[in-house]
Amino acid sequence: MDTKTLEKAAVSIRALSMDAIQKANSGHPGLPLGAAELGAFLYGEVLRHDPAAPGWADRDRFVLSAGHGSMFLYAALHLAGYADITLDDIKNFRQLGSRAAGHPEYGLVRGIETTTGPLGQGLATAVGMAIAETMLAARFNTETRRIVDHATWVLAGDGCLQEGVSAEASSLAGRLKLGKLIVFYDSNRITIDGSTDLAFTEDVEKRYEAYGWQVLRGSMYDFAEMARLVSRAKAEADRPSLVILASVIGKGAPHKQNTADVHGAPLGPEEIAAARNALGIPPDADFYVADEARAYFAAKRAAWTAERQAWEAEFAAWSTENPALRAAWDHFHAGAPLPAEAPAFDPADKIATRAAGNKALHAFAKTNENLTGGSADLKGPNAVGLPAEAGTYSPENRAGRYIHFGIREFAMAAISNGLQIHGGLRAYCATFMVFADYLRPALRLSALMKQPVIYVLTHDSIYVGEDGPTHQPVEHLASLRAMPNVRVLRPADAEETAAAWEMALERLDGPTVLALSRQNLPIIPKADKNWKQTMRRGAYVARDAENGAPDVVVIATGSEVALALEAALLVPGTKTRIVSMPSRELFERQERAAREAVIPPGARVVVAEAGVSQGWEGFAERADILAVERFGESAPAPRVAEHLGFTAEALAKLIARRE
Amino acid sequence: MDTKTLEKAAVSIRALSMDAIQKANSGHPGLPLGAAELGAFLYGEVLRHDPAAPGWADRDRFVLSAGHGSMFLYAALHLAGYADITLDDIKNFRQLGSRAAGHPEYGLVRGIETTTGPLGQGLATAVGMAIAETMLAARFNTETRRIVDHATWVLAGDGCLQEGVSAEASSLAGRLKLGKLIVFYDSNRITIDGSTDLAFTEDVEKRYEAYGWQVLRGSMYDFAEMARLVSRAKAEADRPSLVILASVIGKGAPHKQNTADVHGAPLGPEEIAAARNALGIPPDADFYVADEARAYFAAKRAAWTAERQAWEAEFAAWSTENPALRAAWDHFHAGAPLPAEAPAFDPADKIATRAAGNKALHAFAKTNENLTGGSADLKGPNAVGLPAEAGTYSPENRAGRYIHFGIREFAMAAISNGLQIHGGLRAYCATFMVFADYLRPALRLSALMKQPVIYVLTHDSIYVGEDGPTHQPVEHLASLRAMPNVRVLRPADAEETAAAWEMALERLDGPTVLALSRQNLPIIPKADKNWKQTMRRGAYVARDAENGAPDVVVIATGSEVALALEAALLVPGTKTRIVSMPSRELFERQERAAREAVIPPGARVVVAEAGVSQGWEGFAERADILAVERFGESAPAPRVAEHLGFTAEALAKLIARRE
Repeated sequence: MDTKTLEKAAVSIRALSMDAIQKANSGHPGLPLGAAELGAFLYGEVLRHDPAAPGWADRDRFVLSAGHGSMFLYAALHLAGYADITLDDIKNFRQLGSRAAGHPEYGLVRGIETTTGPLGQGLATAVGMAIAETMLAARFNTETRRIVDHATWVLAGDGCLQEGVSAEASSLAGRLKLGKLIVFYDSNRITIDGSTDLAFTEDVEKRYEAYGWQVLRGSMYDFAEMARLVSRAKAEADRPSLVILASVIGKGAPHKQNTADVHGAPLGPEEIAAARNALGIPPDADFYVADEARAYFAAKRAAWTAERQAWEAEFAAWSTENPALRAAWDHFHAGAPLPAEAPAFDPADKIATRAAGNKALHAFAKTNENLTGGSADLKGPNAVGLPAEAGTYSPENRAGRYIHFGIREFAMAAISNGLQIHGGLRAYCATFMVFADYLRPALRLSALMKQPVIYVLTHDSIYVGEDGPTHQPVEHLASLRAMPNVRVLRPADAEETAAAWEMALERLDGPTVLALSRQNLPIIPKADKNWKQTMRRGAYVARDAENGAPDVVVIATGSEVALALEAALLVPGTKTRIVSMPSRELFERQERAAREAVIPPGARVVVAEAGVSQGWEGFAERADILAVERFGESAPAPRVAEHLGFTAEALAKLIARRE
Repeated sequence: MDTKTLEKAAVSIRALSMDAIQKANSGHPGLPLGAAELGAFLYGEVLRHDPAAPGWADRDRFVLSAGHGSMFLYAALHLAGYADITLDDIKNFRQLGSRAAGHPEYGLVRGIETTTGPLGQGLATAVGMAIAETMLAARFNTETRRIVDHATWVLAGDGCLQEGVSAEASSLAGRLKLGKLIVFYDSNRITIDGSTDLAFTEDVEKRYEAYGWQVLRGSMYDFAEMARLVSRAKAEADRPSLVILASVIGKGAPHKQNTADVHGAPLGPEEIAAARNALGIPPDADFYVADEARAYFAAKRAAWTAERQAWEAEFAAWSTENPALRAAWDHFHAGAPLPAEAPAFDPADKIATRAAGNKALHAFAKTNENLTGGSADLKGPNAVGLPAEAGTYSPENRAGRYIHFGIREFAMAAISNGLQIHGGLRAYCATFMVFADYLRPALRLSALMKQPVIYVLTHDSIYVGEDGPTHQPVEHLASLRAMPNVRVLRPADAEETAAAWEMALERLDGPTVLALSRQNLPIIPKADKNWKQTMRRGAYVARDAENGAPDVVVIATGSEVALALEAALLVPGTKTRIVSMPSRELFERQERAAREAVIPPGARVVVAEAGVSQGWEGFAERADILAVERFGESAPAPRVAEHLGFTAEALAKLIARRE
């Protein structure tokens, strides 16, 4: 290890970062300057990666959890030779269409492993990646060939460690003994408000030891020490490692370093001049990269490619020796699910859609052995257990597929993002719908990153009953639908639930929410015999008016479809069509003809959904929406429903209103 | 301390709990049975309280953070003599209209200090209460008289300690040296999924020591030991205390105790019979309360009342000696704010509404010395600092009013609920609007508990610019408006912002969100000269059509009002009225006449808001809504706006569309 050259690389990271931020007149120099040595060291000496093949399945993953320090990542990727980050991209930092976006965005740049910026989540997502590695290793490695064997690296800052989601995820990572997870903590003792002492005086080392981690300490600016710490971290098989690196925020900017000013604002021309002087950068060298740094990384590339090609040879040999494993590998990495035998339901049965969902999950889990997930300590209530043979994931059973996330909804969802984004697995997670609020920031990242994580949210309305308003979602369907690229499916019965699971698995470009009932529901009649196909467009006709075109169309979702069917029988004189609309978003996206086939233009529309009306005003007049515009009540579900006006009689009255 | 009698009280808590849950056929016996001794001990021996005066300002606060164990609280309150929980209420546990709701609900029962059930939040809210106590003590106690001197007690379970919000709040509580916060941890090693070992093997003791807490250990079932631990906890002035009590979930149910089965389901008649036998309860004694328990609490009441009356005498003496302090006390506890001089803005200035908000906050903070709050490490960016004389809250300056919450949005909001609900203070908190997702579950409790916490959410749209989609709210206005009892105010300019702050402070029955801009905005013209009053109804006319009734009404909010005004100038031929609608919810609640005065029935309506259209469909056709139905982009704000169609030209085209 040539530390002098590495120092040149670190200086280059500083130079690129401060200049890009200055040119953009926007950005966060504090981290890239303060942690430049780590960037040089990681990308040069530590990571198992090949910039020429950023999608290499067995690469190490690196997550910049402190995403505001995005220039750290862009500079390191650029120097290492990732083609997606050119010097021009860096010069266009934070400009429209630039791959060097304000925060690292998954999908924009091959080499960025996950979108970061919302603090704490990068670390939690990395826990999911580390779990995925162990699962895939257990599934695919053989006695003689290890085709899955990589580490997961994180750089986290004070913000990440203050956020609760990292605490949740770190506690679980300790429990799960994720020895190949290594987190660097850029401990610069400065946040936006000033000294971390203002709000953060805890003993982080002791806290992580309490989680069951190995904790190491060193200086950000001593390459030999960093190398020793990394060796110790890699040597530790049973504990994740936290490597606390004492650092100076904005290091290299002589007047601003070690102050909050350098966190999130350009240095300004004067300070850049001073920094160039201090760092040995020629005064007029904009976007300076030291020749030695260029040469250093260029010299690395052959070895990196050789290592990747060695893996490919190993993978080819493994494929030849293990054709069944290889076929499974291909399926795991294909994304699209294998079909499963649809579960059969007795039309006479009443069954909660959460229970029906479990049948569908079991069926798909049997043919799709990459389906993995769990619940935030609600395995039974959410009904998301896997078939027994899938096993429970633990340090003793890395092949297990059911994950006990603990009572940690937010980390669960962020970890699920990591499981999914790692490649090879299909991830689901589950909690009560009302606690979707706890995980919402991670759902947003699923949506933004186009990751098809499946969120099983049961107990989806005031029909939760006795647990009362703290446990009864009311605004949640609206708030979930409001989020771009989230697909909410609220099936009306067991059959729709099985179809919804299939739709969720087939979707590959974003998350799906399955909104499932706690209470039993009848199997509804389906006038549209092609309902399974029509449902994929969001809505279909469950019951049609008997005598000609309908006067009233009742749109209902989930448990309210059965209510609507019941209500329609109470107004036999009204030509009423009942539409089940498991996905409003999908329906709204259809062509006019498809929509009008379900909701004919002349008909009056009534909507029934046990939640707030927000978002239904485009379908019906406010007075024609049966909704819940308040928090719920604690009582047996039928009493709550009655109290809030969710009775067949009340809906019938609404249907008949203008007759 | 008569431990035999206390044991009778504990048996009575068990009896009431198991019977109430059985009768309701719903509920969680695990905690009330497992922690019954603590209930008896706390309510009998420890708490400074007077059931005859549940609103006594200087009472100790007790928070059942593990809210599912609500019968623990109802049974203890009932035995202690709180009039709001009768035996009939307990017999109506979880029934419609019962005060003994599924989870403890603030406002239903005097004696319940905060709504709990969403795990982890009770503990975090208690941190806010403990802060409030120190603030009020610093403000009102004199050399000779301590009229504020009480402790905050919490009972938390495994779920509370796994949730990240408790980690955030506990770390801050350690930093703030809240010595009068005492948390009991009911450590029964069982959660819904089974053994805590499935997901939670960390060393909780060590973790809390790392936070700077005193950690004590003992048995739930040894009164003498509990008394010693409580003494030590009370004696510790500088550290919060965590008292880990080893317990057995469902203790007393001989076959089900120590299993996950007893967590959340009735015991069933057979097990209740066995439990009665084991506990020495007569076999046919439904809702049994031991005579000794009744007598014990009855005998306490005189002393409790005497203690409270002694405080009242002290308070009266203090009032006489310190009339100015007493006047301040009365204002602090009145709820309604004192008026402030409205900040003046130069009509020619362009000023971000966050900056204008700071001026209003300063003005109100000067006349309202109980206004306290802070930001999640974004004091500058959110512009929520207080006047210098308000000071920063710390162990060395308990009178300080600005709180550095650290990078912990969720705990911040839960702590703000605690500050507010304690009584005496008006709480605000702040972060970027996009991170409202991180604190959403606590906002929901503000709304459910009708607590007027003020949420200052700045950087309220894609005009955030360079930080990109992770930092640009898009769906947030919709998702915040979807929540019952949340009032969202999105002022268009500095003047509206000052009025919005006033409205937020005057609201006493629920939280207000102030949605404020990062970017500078002009002061808009206001055709309605009475706009400040009209704005309180949600919307007013900012610019009217020049020649008669408008053909088009443009509804805009926040920064889009200026855009709309600009757009109107581009279509001089169209009779266009521009409406500023800072609060859609308020406007929708008005009588038809008030609404039609702003939006005349015949006019075509166009809406402009830089967020998703969801919820605006009741005002305008989808095609007439200028909205952002996708995640944003990283670029300078004007470029992002242009890219997403937010230009005066595009809006003018929409206005002119059908001309």
